[in-house]
Amino acid sequence: MTRYKAIISYDGTLFSGFQRQPEARSVQEELEKTLKRLNRGQEVTVHGAGRTDAGVHAYGQVIHFDLPEVRDVEKLRFGLDTQSPDDIDVVAVEQASDDFHARYNKHSKTYEFLVDNGRPKNPMMRHYATHYPYPLDLALMQEAIQDLVGTHDFTGFTASGTSVEDKVRTITEARVELDPHTGFLVFTFSGNGFLYKQVRNMVGTLLKIGNGRMPVGQIKVILDKMDRNLAGPTAAGNGLYLKEIYYDN
Amino acid sequence: MTRYKAIISYDGTLFSGFQRQPEARSVQEELEKTLKRLNRGQEVTVHGAGRTDAGVHAYGQVIHFDLPEVRDVEKLRFGLDTQSPDDIDVVAVEQASDDFHARYNKHSKTYEFLVDNGRPKNPMMRHYATHYPYPLDLALMQEAIQDLVGTHDFTGFTASGTSVEDKVRTITEARVELDPHTGFLVFTFSGNGFLYKQVRNMVGTLLKIGNGRMPVGQIKVILDKMDRNLAGPTAAGNGLYLKEIYYDN
Repeated sequence: MTRYKAIISYDGTLFSGFQRQPEARSVQEELEKTLKRLNRGQEVTVHGAGRTDAGVHAYGQVIHFDLPEVRDVEKLRFGLDTQSPDDIDVVAVEQASDDFHARYNKHSKTYEFLVDNGRPKNPMMRHYATHYPYPLDLALMQEAIQDLVGTHDFTGFTASGTSVEDKVRTITEARVELDPHTGFLVFTFSGNGFLYKQVRNMVGTLLKIGNGRMPVGQIKVILDKMDRNLAGPTAAGNGLYLKEIYYDN
Repeated sequence: MTRYKAIISYDGTLFSGFQRQPEARSVQEELEKTLKRLNRGQEVTVHGAGRTDAGVHAYGQVIHFDLPEVRDVEKLRFGLDTQSPDDIDVVAVEQASDDFHARYNKHSKTYEFLVDNGRPKNPMMRHYATHYPYPLDLALMQEAIQDLVGTHDFTGFTASGTSVEDKVRTITEARVELDPHTGFLVFTFSGNGFLYKQVRNMVGTLLKIGNGRMPVGQIKVILDKMDRNLAGPTAAGNGLYLKEIYYDN
């Protein structure tokens, strides 16, 4: 048995998410179908580092899987890439140690969230950025976003009813900038783990702050009170990108 | 009767083209449906400056249409924009003189053509750039593209069997650059008119030159001999954008 690690990108628009689920199209299932063909009809299980939701995109999702033999990794990448559907691309494949696990090995992730603040929106980007056609004060959001950096209990920013017990996570970087080339706002978050819908809830809150409908100090209040009701709405998945995953060592 | 001029953008992916045609979805038909609703059920005819093909996008298509009365143009823009399908956006509406005609008034156009030369491609851009996963020498294409500038008979670059008699057109600007932000090649062409499939045939030829499968002097030969068979293949419509239209006066 040989373990492989791969970096994949995908357009989340037509997927119900990364993870396999009955009666719905998933990235995991499509990759497993391709790998089965490349493995003489034998099933192959794909493990992903992060479970992106419906509509969420990825430039740097990491997966691992096992095949019975050693393969040329560039040929394997090419086969996986060209035989998978058009909305999945396989960027890189490498051999990994037998105990490598895309999800359980310690890692940090970077997410980006794109907001199209134009009126009207850019129709070419309607699946690739969230349209927010209301006034936004960038400086207010840049001030507020700093309160997310550090180690906090992010209960107030996750979906209520999440089964994860420990909701303490560390955000090492959080920033929002205007991309002069696209005119879009780009939110960037890096950290050692993110709770279910955490990034989208943080963005939804920051947009409310930027629009003047929540005070700039609201992030601190939400972190203190650990109350989801104090945060803004969940921003739509179409603006979210799993950008990069870094494994320790 | 009041005439209106509007700038519209659209994602060409799900359209058979700009122009109305039976049994196929077109930009013109969708806009006419919206205008009929905004005009108390009375039919409105939309005239477009350029007839983009299936899959071709627009940031700056210009249309004109008539309504029986004077309207507030920003309200009209908002109504047209929000009541049209999601893949059409109405950027601007203004009142025009009664004799303004989007197609027949003298104008020049700028087209852009995006090529994703990455391996693998960017899956988010698969409908918005043509994927060309082969080596390309940018300098060769930059040299060859200059031969397109000027007034020429472009017979060799149009689809054979085109009904237009006069195939002499003037290209005022032609260039190709690498966009450092996207990594894509961007071809830009401005001129006083383009023949059917001309831009896509010019790009298909330039890609062959860049890939070393046609000599750098091939453009001159095609212009001289006026023979479509000497040019490269028609590049796919998904990379093409009608960028901007400038009217004389």
